[in-house]
Amino acid sequence: MSTYVLGLDFGTLSVRALLVAVEDGREVACAVSDYKHGVIDQTLPETGEALPPDWALQHPQDYLDAMTAAVREVMSISGVAPASVIGIGTDFTACTMLPVNSFGVPLALDPKWAGHKHAWVKLWKHHAAQPQANRINEVAEAAGESFLQRYGGKISSEWFFSKTLQLLEEAPEVYRAADRLIEASDWIVWQLTGVETRNACTAGYKAMWEKASGFPSSAFFRCLDPEFEHVVDEKMLRHIAPIGEKAGELTAQMAERLGLSAGTAVAVGNIDAHVAVPATTVAGEGVMVAIMGTSTCHMVLGREARIVEGMCGYVEDGILPGFFGFEAGQSCVGDHFAWFAENCVPASYEREAEERSLSVHELLTEKAAQLRPGESGLLALDWWNGNRSVLVDADLTGLLVGCTLNTRPEEIYRALIEATAFGTNIIIEAFVSNGIEVNEIVACGGLPDRNELLMQIYADVTGREFKIAESAQTCALGSAMWGAVAAGKARGGYDDIAEAARRMARVRDCSFKPVAENHAIYRKLFIEYQKLHDYFGREGSNAMKTLKNLRKQQLQ
Amino acid sequence: MSTYVLGLDFGTLSVRALLVAVEDGREVACAVSDYKHGVIDQTLPETGEALPPDWALQHPQDYLDAMTAAVREVMSISGVAPASVIGIGTDFTACTMLPVNSFGVPLALDPKWAGHKHAWVKLWKHHAAQPQANRINEVAEAAGESFLQRYGGKISSEWFFSKTLQLLEEAPEVYRAADRLIEASDWIVWQLTGVETRNACTAGYKAMWEKASGFPSSAFFRCLDPEFEHVVDEKMLRHIAPIGEKAGELTAQMAERLGLSAGTAVAVGNIDAHVAVPATTVAGEGVMVAIMGTSTCHMVLGREARIVEGMCGYVEDGILPGFFGFEAGQSCVGDHFAWFAENCVPASYEREAEERSLSVHELLTEKAAQLRPGESGLLALDWWNGNRSVLVDADLTGLLVGCTLNTRPEEIYRALIEATAFGTNIIIEAFVSNGIEVNEIVACGGLPDRNELLMQIYADVTGREFKIAESAQTCALGSAMWGAVAAGKARGGYDDIAEAARRMARVRDCSFKPVAENHAIYRKLFIEYQKLHDYFGREGSNAMKTLKNLRKQQLQ
Repeated sequence: MSTYVLGLDFGTLSVRALLVAVEDGREVACAVSDYKHGVIDQTLPETGEALPPDWALQHPQDYLDAMTAAVREVMSISGVAPASVIGIGTDFTACTMLPVNSFGVPLALDPKWAGHKHAWVKLWKHHAAQPQANRINEVAEAAGESFLQRYGGKISSEWFFSKTLQLLEEAPEVYRAADRLIEASDWIVWQLTGVETRNACTAGYKAMWEKASGFPSSAFFRCLDPEFEHVVDEKMLRHIAPIGEKAGELTAQMAERLGLSAGTAVAVGNIDAHVAVPATTVAGEGVMVAIMGTSTCHMVLGREARIVEGMCGYVEDGILPGFFGFEAGQSCVGDHFAWFAENCVPASYEREAEERSLSVHELLTEKAAQLRPGESGLLALDWWNGNRSVLVDADLTGLLVGCTLNTRPEEIYRALIEATAFGTNIIIEAFVSNGIEVNEIVACGGLPDRNELLMQIYADVTGREFKIAESAQTCALGSAMWGAVAAGKARGGYDDIAEAARRMARVRDCSFKPVAENHAIYRKLFIEYQKLHDYFGREGSNAMKTLKNLRKQQLQ
Repeated sequence: MSTYVLGLDFGTLSVRALLVAVEDGREVACAVSDYKHGVIDQTLPETGEALPPDWALQHPQDYLDAMTAAVREVMSISGVAPASVIGIGTDFTACTMLPVNSFGVPLALDPKWAGHKHAWVKLWKHHAAQPQANRINEVAEAAGESFLQRYGGKISSEWFFSKTLQLLEEAPEVYRAADRLIEASDWIVWQLTGVETRNACTAGYKAMWEKASGFPSSAFFRCLDPEFEHVVDEKMLRHIAPIGEKAGELTAQMAERLGLSAGTAVAVGNIDAHVAVPATTVAGEGVMVAIMGTSTCHMVLGREARIVEGMCGYVEDGILPGFFGFEAGQSCVGDHFAWFAENCVPASYEREAEERSLSVHELLTEKAAQLRPGESGLLALDWWNGNRSVLVDADLTGLLVGCTLNTRPEEIYRALIEATAFGTNIIIEAFVSNGIEVNEIVACGGLPDRNELLMQIYADVTGREFKIAESAQTCALGSAMWGAVAAGKARGGYDDIAEAARRMARVRDCSFKPVAENHAIYRKLFIEYQKLHDYFGREGSNAMKTLKNLRKQQLQ
């Protein structure tokens, strides 16, 4: 009898359920279900209260409802018997965190707290904790805390303790009411298994935990706020489960809700980007995996610890057991193009797209593909959502230079694509110059599939070949693979991820290779990009922060 | 019997004919006629040849056809007898120049030359002569030519000898075939009167002529190119007619064509912006006139010569007899907003505008008016069409900083408006700090009429009151006033422009006054604007030029 595993990929706007055959990775059925409330960044659903700038929340009930819908749909489409599903793996955006009570019930679902914005899920792209991140960095630097080095010298406003400290400082009553503060990745596993676990991936990449020494000291947390001293012991767990471990088994209640079998193995939580690595066939060092969607994550495995400026972090065993997993990221990629399509595309283009049955993105891409590198005279800094790599500063903003009265929408569109490619190149160069080999790149995620121009620009800008993962849903596939490992060979799965990768993952035959003459021009443009990057991102100009501060004052 | 004068205002896209009562400036009738070919910046009409970047041509026949249509229409609407029209004044964009034969026939209308792009009218915003402008500046600086000082240290790529030198260098055969090289302002007067004249305004502001010493020396022109040595004697006139003088009388042929009387007095040519000054009531020093349309010109009168960095120039008797006329300019104002409306406004906004019977500009303005200063977090450098003031560099380009994923179209629109206001403030401060008083500002042109938000932003940014000229067509009114002066008192007009200004011009009762709290925020933003202005416009960054050079290489 064939066995199957289920991968549940919780993205920014929807959850994807993918049912995969264990023997060969064949994708049997897939279903996607949107979160009803999407990203909550304007007004709080319960009260209509306007949210401050940089806030981004989600509704925890959306996760459960969308998961139920997607799993029921995928099982129904596939016709596979629930008993044949031997394992479930999940992955989630991160750091996406929420306060819950001791039973795992979100405070946002408690009528007593639902009207308080701090009771809600803070989505990864909630950027309002920058002051707290700044202070964590200052205090850690002053105290000589060694963890800073692992994260390239700076931790991000997106991370767990930045968000948690914001919660404590701005809403101590909510902080106190929360029995647990938890990553959504661990919370969803808790919902599935009835057991609270914490996974090494989010703990390592988002909460300054490391295998050897655990979390930062209570003394350090105390320096941030006396009440923060025991945050780990009071609100979290010190036991961190390694990636690939079984968190528990599906509860009867949840099995009934989802239409699956009670007792099915459930893997510990994981981060969406990180589960993609084995799903792109990568099980060793020297290969960069670029997971390109609304944002991009860059993953490389290595055998030794290395310090890279502004890297999101490295975590021992954080991606695959036995390796240091290095991560970098760009916070605005697909989001960038979506913003442009929504806000900057003239009606005449929309009409043309409609008449020719193209999406606006397809039309823009077609027009942008007619342009040669450098022809637009435009250059952008891709910081519409801050900078998450090298500079690690959410208060940086987007810049476009070179505009003339002849500038056309497709030129701006192409400049935004190029800017994200330059951003990727900054990351590759930072890795390489710090001794982390990047001999090969495999891209996956939604963008490579949808946009050949974009992939060619990335190859031309970086001067490197980009291979593409065969699966169009590598995160969900990766989660399913971890589900197979959680089940184990004895129950029809695999005992380790390397074997799962050999059996279940593939790259495509075709790839994107750099065109030498394009690369030569992009080298020149990259020099200009680097200069602007350093001028606005480092010591040269404070303009972006001054403007952002003025904006905040005016919105108060 | 009432007498009337006709003002013909040749703009960038159309000519406006305004019939005005001499006694009180009453605007009896007005007609506008578009140039059939508009601005030619993509392909040459005759051959379909693609034009290089930065080129902007016009079709000379368009001027004649549009003038005929507009004059015939205005006479027909008004019902005024041709004999009652005692004078005609004209104004034109400048430097807009063309090569013609000894009869004044444009080479572009000669089949032998029509296929050559250099035979066509080079419009003021033709910016492809920047290399020639650079060389003129270098040579003049090396030779210690005193004229440079009058133009703030730099002459512009838009000016007469930049364009003429480009013609000589790139198409010597066209240069040689041209008997005359002439401003369109003088050419149209030649067409009307049959007499070739040259006016002090364009000669002074665009061709380095001054009352005391005339044109630069032949020795100077020789340094630029041996064949250029005698450009003035071979292709131009040394006699320059003062503003307000009668150039001649309407020829019988032209009178018949236009439906006017032969013998009607025609004033010497003038520049569109400069004729607006008396039409806003200004006849003395200390008042800045801002003529705000596709671009903005700033005029101030003074009693003494003054040097201001990057000023377009000062010309003795260039605006009004008896005064030094100081001019500064911004090359992209209305054009800026038009570019935005055409290229950057999403379909959803266009639909909303349609449903509510608003223009896109009205809708954007309405939305932008909801924003407080600084609220968008955006800041722009208004150099979409280069910089014509202080920096005088057509190779500078536009910049927008502060973009986030929450940035909305109306925020960018407002940022572009604000950027032009900051640009105006740079000019005002340059005048004031060099001893040219600006105690009062009167705005005129198309923009003040159409956009109250824009005027309020200008008042808030500059911290100064903006009065508005009563006439919505001050250029045409100014030309008509000069037509009255050309006719003279004996023929029912006036003997001097000051009297014409007292009788025929007015400002409105209402004005725009700065709001103190807005001004305080704009002062902070202006500091950031100045920093970016200096960084990209002076010594800090060469990015804009590098990008523009790459663009040129890629388009070759």
